[in-house]
Amino acid sequence: MSSTEKRHYNPERAQQRREQVLDAAAQCFARRGFHAASMAEISKVAGMSAGHIYNYFSGKDEIISAFIELDTERVGELLGELGQAEDPLQEMVDTTREHVDESLEPVNWKLYLEISAEASRNDKIALRVQEGDRVSREQFGGLLRRCREARGLSTDDATIDGRMEVLIAMYQGLPLRLLHNPDLDRDALSESFKVALRALLFS
Amino acid sequence: MSSTEKRHYNPERAQQRREQVLDAAAQCFARRGFHAASMAEISKVAGMSAGHIYNYFSGKDEIISAFIELDTERVGELLGELGQAEDPLQEMVDTTREHVDESLEPVNWKLYLEISAEASRNDKIALRVQEGDRVSREQFGGLLRRCREARGLSTDDATIDGRMEVLIAMYQGLPLRLLHNPDLDRDALSESFKVALRALLFS
Repeated sequence: MSSTEKRHYNPERAQQRREQVLDAAAQCFARRGFHAASMAEISKVAGMSAGHIYNYFSGKDEIISAFIELDTERVGELLGELGQAEDPLQEMVDTTREHVDESLEPVNWKLYLEISAEASRNDKIALRVQEGDRVSREQFGGLLRRCREARGLSTDDATIDGRMEVLIAMYQGLPLRLLHNPDLDRDALSESFKVALRALLFS
Repeated sequence: MSSTEKRHYNPERAQQRREQVLDAAAQCFARRGFHAASMAEISKVAGMSAGHIYNYFSGKDEIISAFIELDTERVGELLGELGQAEDPLQEMVDTTREHVDESLEPVNWKLYLEISAEASRNDKIALRVQEGDRVSREQFGGLLRRCREARGLSTDDATIDGRMEVLIAMYQGLPLRLLHNPDLDRDALSESFKVALRALLFS
């Protein structure tokens, strides 16, 4: 980077601009889907010129990648907090309702559902989704192994992987339940969720 | 219908044609998504004239509705078979691996994921999805209640609804796991799935 460019580069402003684009893209994707939304439309909603937006993202695929990174960070923070608890597995059960509510928050799943549908037919996006998931599984698997070991429970790979996959499937399936049954009883759901969680974590 | 029309109407052929359109639509939706696929493209893949296709479906929304009906029928048949078993809940646990494999079959979930993403922004499709789910839940809820009653387990509404929602969330979340982790260990997953199932069904 030349010294002239350095003088003009303002990282805080760039970060603000990137967030502005991501907010606009989230709106456009949620409203019309990934394919129907265009970079021109996203730049319009973001209040930028069509050319300006390409300073921040080379295209829609790169915008989607940024969303996946943000989601992986969000999960990482949740797991990090959980890891600080005295008894992380018990904490996970005790905070079930909170995590159920968070999973059912449209801002957390609408876009992610769109990304998943896109990943099912776009290999580039699929690889990004898989990379984010691998990072989260490593973190979660480590926590699960450490806590189960402390309790004298089995920690072989099949048990850790299997428990983790089912547990994540339950959480990732929740938004689909809300779509299929908007009147679902969250109290009843959370109580049954705990029943399954306890079995998966403590046996 | 006039007698002339009656003479020309061949229900078997009409059914064949409808299936031809649905096969073509499934291919187009999976490849390009619901929005990007056009009726013209679907008719081309189906080997029909663009005008002819409208004899069977008024548009893409109606095609999606037909897919939802087929999926509801598929679930209904599965639950019907289960209901014939001597001990349906135990049968459900014993056939876990089979149902896990079925849920992970791309032909069963790719299109459904697309429909779910569409339902999140299209109220008409959302209502159809919800209606199909209501039918399946009524059938499943009845079976669960009857079997739990026979075992002397709690059958209050919150328990039945909660157990059912978590169980369906687990199954509906499975395809998302495959997208996120294509190398997932199906044996390990199925064993852990059984742990959660037993807790949800038998406690």
